[in-house]
Amino acid sequence: MDREEIEVLLRQAGEKIKVALDNTNIQVDTKTNRKDLVTNIDKEIQRFLIEAIVKQDPHAKIMAEENGRDQLNDFSGRVYIIDPIDGTLNFVLEQENFCVMIGIYEDQQPVLGFIYDVMKDQMLSGGPKIGVYCNGSRLDAPADLRIEDGLLGLNSGMYAANFHHARDLGQKAMGVRMLGCAGVELSALLLGQRIGYISNLSPWDYAAGGVLLETFGMKMSRLDGTPLSFSGREYFIAGTKKAYTEMIALTKQEN
Amino acid sequence: MDREEIEVLLRQAGEKIKVALDNTNIQVDTKTNRKDLVTNIDKEIQRFLIEAIVKQDPHAKIMAEENGRDQLNDFSGRVYIIDPIDGTLNFVLEQENFCVMIGIYEDQQPVLGFIYDVMKDQMLSGGPKIGVYCNGSRLDAPADLRIEDGLLGLNSGMYAANFHHARDLGQKAMGVRMLGCAGVELSALLLGQRIGYISNLSPWDYAAGGVLLETFGMKMSRLDGTPLSFSGREYFIAGTKKAYTEMIALTKQEN
Repeated sequence: MDREEIEVLLRQAGEKIKVALDNTNIQVDTKTNRKDLVTNIDKEIQRFLIEAIVKQDPHAKIMAEENGRDQLNDFSGRVYIIDPIDGTLNFVLEQENFCVMIGIYEDQQPVLGFIYDVMKDQMLSGGPKIGVYCNGSRLDAPADLRIEDGLLGLNSGMYAANFHHARDLGQKAMGVRMLGCAGVELSALLLGQRIGYISNLSPWDYAAGGVLLETFGMKMSRLDGTPLSFSGREYFIAGTKKAYTEMIALTKQEN
Repeated sequence: MDREEIEVLLRQAGEKIKVALDNTNIQVDTKTNRKDLVTNIDKEIQRFLIEAIVKQDPHAKIMAEENGRDQLNDFSGRVYIIDPIDGTLNFVLEQENFCVMIGIYEDQQPVLGFIYDVMKDQMLSGGPKIGVYCNGSRLDAPADLRIEDGLLGLNSGMYAANFHHARDLGQKAMGVRMLGCAGVELSALLLGQRIGYISNLSPWDYAAGGVLLETFGMKMSRLDGTPLSFSGREYFIAGTKKAYTEMIALTKQEN
């Protein structure tokens, strides 16, 4: 499937989500703890996306957040990594600041990434061969800002604990932002509104953004600079080239 | 001036700000420290608003963030409290998530409040006699949620230091959000997307939101529950009735 086809699919998913919000037809369940939510809409949207993808691309492998699709052992060939609603807590409590995301990899190499902020109607998409687009317009890579020249997106728990110097880094930056959604934070980084983002993420949280960061020559990894494993939750850092290099010098140390 | 007249004025201010952003015609200066910014646009917008208000209402008193208008000793009669750009750091670094705000008081009683999120084109306005409106549509007061049922907006420094239990309260809530703009946080509270907001604010940061909170029967005060003085910077807490009562029991204590 090409960029335009996936964008159409994501906008269809967005419409379904808006209809569900209008009908306040949302059943909320908890997963690992009271703050880790899933709704019937997350599951419905995931089914919708997988069905459409498999129809077009029957040999594709799928990894996705819900319904027991969250493990994948073999990343050879074409892999679609899907987050049907990234930021479910925001979806439930704010009815905005959530994203639908798809990252496509071929033999573990980034091919296409899509972050669709539904309520803002902001579609970031692209890949190494075609560049990065926002609602169809080609974007330039943002300025390679240093940490002291921009805002740092942070996970609240890591900031509170100064985990691997996360709070120290927040204080070096111009300011700290917590939006509660990896897709929103990575979109902000791609648009030049952040110098970095530090959090604790699963593959579907960073797969789409990772393709776009790579396309712009920006960086993401574990806190010690080693590659993310695309398996389970990991501590995550991303940034402009310069800010990433400055940050990783601290985050790879314990406190 | 009535609600519609002030809304027209704020939308005109918003247009001027957007033109300045398009022309990247922004000169940035620092005030008290490297993270406390002011731009030529803050000052121009303030001049524009004051000129228009004084023309219509020549006896009005004015308090405003910039250009040495930040003190007012006599709050008798009609007072306009103006923030030309709330969230100047966001304005400079994000080009979104900033607001133009006006609060109008008569003999210290709230009359009208306006929070205009320029890039979102979201105008919250109203007062005790007319109710609260969002882009012209009358809003119902949000549900009176308890702290554990919603998101808490927080100032990063107060959260880091667990100042008067700010971090403990963040952990009781469903999540912590840091947007870096009082107008954006208070709008979220008024729209039911937050159970509360804790920060360190000046009168122009809370004057407009204060009128709208009062209209909805929501609460704001200093951390010890005493009234804000509308003079200088003060530690600030606001919330739904239930969450405010729960939070203030902790914030009025030292750590």
